[in-house]
Amino acid sequence: MRKNRVIQRIKQKDSVVNGWLSLPCGFATEMMAHQGWDSLTIDMQHGLIDYTDCVTMLTAISTTSTVPLVRVPSLEPGLIMKVLDAGAYGVIAPMINTADDAQALVSACRYPPLGMRSYGPHRAMLYGGADYAAHANDEVLILGMIETREGVANLDEILAVEGLDGIYIGPADLALSHGKAPGFDHGEGELDTIIQSLIDRCRQQGKVTGIHNGSATHARSMLARGCDLVTVGSDARLLVNGSRDILEAMGHKVQVSEGY
Amino acid sequence: MRKNRVIQRIKQKDSVVNGWLSLPCGFATEMMAHQGWDSLTIDMQHGLIDYTDCVTMLTAISTTSTVPLVRVPSLEPGLIMKVLDAGAYGVIAPMINTADDAQALVSACRYPPLGMRSYGPHRAMLYGGADYAAHANDEVLILGMIETREGVANLDEILAVEGLDGIYIGPADLALSHGKAPGFDHGEGELDTIIQSLIDRCRQQGKVTGIHNGSATHARSMLARGCDLVTVGSDARLLVNGSRDILEAMGHKVQVSEGY
Amino acid sequence: MRKNRVIQRIKQKDSVVNGWLSLPCGFATEMMAHQGWDSLTIDMQHGLIDYTDCVTMLTAISTTSTVPLVRVPSLEPGLIMKVLDAGAYGVIAPMINTADDAQALVSACRYPPLGMRSYGPHRAMLYGGADYAAHANDEVLILGMIETREGVANLDEILAVEGLDGIYIGPADLALSHGKAPGFDHGEGELDTIIQSLIDRCRQQGKVTGIHNGSATHARSMLARGCDLVTVGSDARLLVNGSRDILEAMGHKVQVSEGY
Amino acid sequence: MRKNRVIQRIKQKDSVVNGWLSLPCGFATEMMAHQGWDSLTIDMQHGLIDYTDCVTMLTAISTTSTVPLVRVPSLEPGLIMKVLDAGAYGVIAPMINTADDAQALVSACRYPPLGMRSYGPHRAMLYGGADYAAHANDEVLILGMIETREGVANLDEILAVEGLDGIYIGPADLALSHGKAPGFDHGEGELDTIIQSLIDRCRQQGKVTGIHNGSATHARSMLARGCDLVTVGSDARLLVNGSRDILEAMGHKVQVSEGY
Amino acid sequence: MRKNRVIQRIKQKDSVVNGWLSLPCGFATEMMAHQGWDSLTIDMQHGLIDYTDCVTMLTAISTTSTVPLVRVPSLEPGLIMKVLDAGAYGVIAPMINTADDAQALVSACRYPPLGMRSYGPHRAMLYGGADYAAHANDEVLILGMIETREGVANLDEILAVEGLDGIYIGPADLALSHGKAPGFDHGEGELDTIIQSLIDRCRQQGKVTGIHNGSATHARSMLARGCDLVTVGSDARLLVNGSRDILEAMGHKVQVSEGY
Amino acid sequence: MRKNRVIQRIKQKDSVVNGWLSLPCGFATEMMAHQGWDSLTIDMQHGLIDYTDCVTMLTAISTTSTVPLVRVPSLEPGLIMKVLDAGAYGVIAPMINTADDAQALVSACRYPPLGMRSYGPHRAMLYGGADYAAHANDEVLILGMIETREGVANLDEILAVEGLDGIYIGPADLALSHGKAPGFDHGEGELDTIIQSLIDRCRQQGKVTGIHNGSATHARSMLARGCDLVTVGSDARLLVNGSRDILEAMGHKVQVSEGY
Repeated sequence: MRKNRVIQRIKQKDSVVNGWLSLPCGFATEMMAHQGWDSLTIDMQHGLIDYTDCVTMLTAISTTSTVPLVRVPSLEPGLIMKVLDAGAYGVIAPMINTADDAQALVSACRYPPLGMRSYGPHRAMLYGGADYAAHANDEVLILGMIETREGVANLDEILAVEGLDGIYIGPADLALSHGKAPGFDHGEGELDTIIQSLIDRCRQQGKVTGIHNGSATHARSMLARGCDLVTVGSDARLLVNGSRDILEAMGHKVQVSEGY
Repeated sequence: MRKNRVIQRIKQKDSVVNGWLSLPCGFATEMMAHQGWDSLTIDMQHGLIDYTDCVTMLTAISTTSTVPLVRVPSLEPGLIMKVLDAGAYGVIAPMINTADDAQALVSACRYPPLGMRSYGPHRAMLYGGADYAAHANDEVLILGMIETREGVANLDEILAVEGLDGIYIGPADLALSHGKAPGFDHGEGELDTIIQSLIDRCRQQGKVTGIHNGSATHARSMLARGCDLVTVGSDARLLVNGSRDILEAMGHKVQVSEGY
Repeated sequence: MRKNRVIQRIKQKDSVVNGWLSLPCGFATEMMAHQGWDSLTIDMQHGLIDYTDCVTMLTAISTTSTVPLVRVPSLEPGLIMKVLDAGAYGVIAPMINTADDAQALVSACRYPPLGMRSYGPHRAMLYGGADYAAHANDEVLILGMIETREGVANLDEILAVEGLDGIYIGPADLALSHGKAPGFDHGEGELDTIIQSLIDRCRQQGKVTGIHNGSATHARSMLARGCDLVTVGSDARLLVNGSRDILEAMGHKVQVSEGY
Repeated sequence: MRKNRVIQRIKQKDSVVNGWLSLPCGFATEMMAHQGWDSLTIDMQHGLIDYTDCVTMLTAISTTSTVPLVRVPSLEPGLIMKVLDAGAYGVIAPMINTADDAQALVSACRYPPLGMRSYGPHRAMLYGGADYAAHANDEVLILGMIETREGVANLDEILAVEGLDGIYIGPADLALSHGKAPGFDHGEGELDTIIQSLIDRCRQQGKVTGIHNGSATHARSMLARGCDLVTVGSDARLLVNGSRDILEAMGHKVQVSEGY
Repeated sequence: MRKNRVIQRIKQKDSVVNGWLSLPCGFATEMMAHQGWDSLTIDMQHGLIDYTDCVTMLTAISTTSTVPLVRVPSLEPGLIMKVLDAGAYGVIAPMINTADDAQALVSACRYPPLGMRSYGPHRAMLYGGADYAAHANDEVLILGMIETREGVANLDEILAVEGLDGIYIGPADLALSHGKAPGFDHGEGELDTIIQSLIDRCRQQGKVTGIHNGSATHARSMLARGCDLVTVGSDARLLVNGSRDILEAMGHKVQVSEGY
Repeated sequence: MRKNRVIQRIKQKDSVVNGWLSLPCGFATEMMAHQGWDSLTIDMQHGLIDYTDCVTMLTAISTTSTVPLVRVPSLEPGLIMKVLDAGAYGVIAPMINTADDAQALVSACRYPPLGMRSYGPHRAMLYGGADYAAHANDEVLILGMIETREGVANLDEILAVEGLDGIYIGPADLALSHGKAPGFDHGEGELDTIIQSLIDRCRQQGKVTGIHNGSATHARSMLARGCDLVTVGSDARLLVNGSRDILEAMGHKVQVSEGY
């Protein structure tokens, strides 16, 4: 089975720089995949991306050595299994607030005896190889998102669930959950302290930590502070920022469109 | 944030005339949106409409001032949140039979602390404005469908759930649930009495009432009897009725295709 | 090979009532196909319909006994042949202004020796039968649109082209070509005289005449005056008219959207 | 309502030979539907097929007398009801491990009072007829997959659920669940004994038994041993096997791609 | 009819800053349309964009006041008319090398008596208004690309064709045609001299000049030198450049992918 | 630039075994691409495949080392250039009957000075490399189909057109053109003599010869008789043949569906 280079890099203590895909577009995906990102995450939660788009995008990524990950919209097991059968080499699941949530995630992602994943990895075998089923439990990366007060409180029980590789920190929802405005790259303060504690507790237990960032500068600091995988921006954010830069350079008044 | 004109009209005691979309077609939607309906509901439950169609249709509606609503197929939270992120200004959810159902609906639709909606309103911010997240809990209309014996019995507990704006009455399923043939525009009798009691109890508690109708005549009567929002027919129904009228005028024998 | 019921009806002096499809939507098409139209024409010229939509729509029509026709956007032969391979049982081509235009149309639609159609009727054989290629030149209806001054002037030469079954009159473009506002159902006057002469000359030569109409009333009169096939309205027109009727019945001010 | 020929054949003790569709392609489906399979199952679980593909494929099957079945990806009720509204004449649901699972399946598939299916069979009425709702509970075939140790253990309770027509045996997951490599056509041994006992217990209770097979030879033996419905291979498998045969005949080294 | 703001700005001597769309993606388009570009051009020639994508993208642009333009792939008249019927407010056509080419372009874009455009502006009337047909010849901008030696040589005859609004300069093909490597933003030299002469001759005849640029700096200089409309980069280019900037900031080796 | 392995094999006197794709399906394509075909041809002429499908299929093929070719539906230059920009490494064009046809084909496929191809190979550069434009005239294979009496008569003039790599023989249309039933694998007789003469004349002039075959046996004979590239069957044919084999093995009466 084709090795998961994200897992390999993390094992070798190499950082993983992850790109983020919100546009339901195979060509945009293929172009992104050629730029040198270690991995690309197809965001089926907040991106405007459905299952059929996801298959097209996974195929586009498969033309390169970039590792394809998918953020799923919920714990509904049917879709999670479909995404894995389509060749996702990792799943990021939102709102993992309890050990039961984590167990449900693992159950959908791992073949027996670890979980209840059903057999039929049609496209995954094209991508991963004929021996996919025998090794998938080792090569597919499973990260649960910690992004609520409850998830923070239950981190230890969550990390104790066998088959979960680690966490992915969602700063925007974490802020909302703590009564603050959503956003990334929180500076000093309560949220920053919480995030650092999440990282530290994962490291102590040998678990993977990923986090979403708004800028490369912040992403580098998160690597320095112990994260394994950092996301910077998104394809949608590149369109907004790039347009703004050009229109400002042209002396055009620019409309404000925040929050990506 | 762009105001929800449906909520505004209801507050001002103006009636809301809602169109219904069953065809997965952006151009049909855009044409409907130009005709003067106050709102259009994209029916993802019984219409042949998937998430990707829904995004295309929301975009088509956004070329006009018509308010975009979506009926979701179930309480699966992943899809409900995706529909809101895509810019739906209202959600109608089927089969709200208990307060737990209503709470699950609110949880998927409202940001904390009212609910558990996750942050990432990418298209919603394009449509609603950069301050969408701060006001969405006020501007998004959430209606639970009352369409079973159980839902009727539990109406008070359902209406007591904070964050639910009101109900949408489904006459066809209500009939099925009472052992009758499905249909709209029930005349006098048990169902009519039940429907009137639903309207009355909502009004007493200051909640919104919407209802599905088969004809404009019946819809007008429902407004007179206290409903705030009435749906008349559907795009699919217009194709069937319009074809029938033409073929009859041409002297052609018309096939019968009931039930839309 | 499955017989072309439109051709059969015309031979038997039965009128053909044709529906018109502008919406790129398989479900709308299937619903229309169940209503009793003799034939349905997929409008790839002015409808918002591409080749892939056309295949989906042809398949939807094939679930019924309604005859599938296609109006192509131009004389580009690649698309005309693709539409026939996909199972269209008739082609209506716009802007047939000269005998050369008519010959180009026939060349694209007929197998040798009549024309240059290339062999490969993949879906057409599923729909028509294994002996499709042997009979297609007889069963596929080919109509050239007469809709300009030039076309009217050259009618005799056009009708003389072997392999062309007849004409389809386009009243809107005919009006534009004569310096008048586009529209259907012209009353008495120059255009009406021209149209009658087109019908008469076709009948004299045993050719088929079809025409686009805005109303059933006008369509019936055109049958009485010698047309073989009449189109009334379109799916898009049904949505506009039906919405207008409902909104007027509801007492809503209706926006005007003319011209379909 | 159009009769379900699969149910008819089973009642008449005729075998049902079922084809399997993994390719999200209307044209491939229509071609398969013309070959003479009694039924075709659209695999929304492991096939790369989404709801919109499913509608297109159901329409393609509806051009023939082949019976359309759908395997759904999970017990999420919204999608099951959408598939039925789109005209599926049967549902195969994976991982029916308990009577609760079976009850949830029946609840989504049957109208009251047997279940909670909501009314709105828009495409189903086009395919089945105007009286669809009155007869759908009798004509729609519902099979639960038995494919885990737990499902085997709970078979009697599962079969006791009113409204479930029978089971569909999934040999690959059954093998995984018993610690063996996934695959079809198990020879003698533990799995074979289990499968025979499933068939026998279903027959004793008058329930339908279907099973997935890798070859026609094995499928014939399963019919002989008491199965009612047998699947052989899949469209994807035909592409792989057929390519292999040609490339071997051409003397080309063939890549190995197992497991479909 | 809705006014064409690009034409208005040019008449008022205001510069037009045009964005360029190569990604077949409605959501990317809608996001671009909200950033403040005066116009956006959907590139159906070199972008990976088909007619159906184009309709989706035109609808997305119509949610804002940005003006929608389309570059068509060739002079095939069927597609040009379809794009206009779908609501494009301008057409840029490649390889206008002779007056005959220019005349063919005008013929496809203008209603009689200027051209041969056929009547049926279904989506264009939704966007432009019910009086679209009466004013479209004035409000639709038609630009022919000058991008070969032959086109340069024939500029005067081309500009003399009635109904053509002006030219759009393609620096990359112009370079190829002169035996140089393709690229934008040519500095001093032969090509620069040619481009300046094109601008000057257009200005003398009161015709519009647009040009493609690789950078805002160069685009500003082209405005200063007499151009009316300047394109800067493209959505695809923003993804490439933005990814490169982030990956460099992260210290990742970046792959080179030139030429957009 | 990535080398064209088909051209390399032909130069090395290795045979090329080409697969044929008629199904508009990315997953079917990706599965075919993993089986070991030297090249796969996407049939946009008789396959049910549009441009958007073609891009998806080219991407799917790009996940392997199989070489992607496209048969275009006609000589319309806009589509030919779009297909090349999307990364096709070869074009097969139908109905090349004269030297003018061949010249038009070359003009659309080759950059200046050989042809008039316009610059903008967006996806082609992702697939082929940043130096694509400098080498594309050498690496893209251009074959004209000889499939009519006229084409046979004009072969020498056709082969004399600079920039054309060779021919692809279409036996079915060649038969039709000679008054015979369409089909492949003609045995002895007039057509066989013609085909051998085409092969011989190409070899004498150092041009490539490809041919369509119905069976591997015939394809091997054509290689032995001097062809460079042979196609065997198609994906659609595999579905038909494979279904027939299974249904016969099951003892089911099989429907006949010839001609793929």
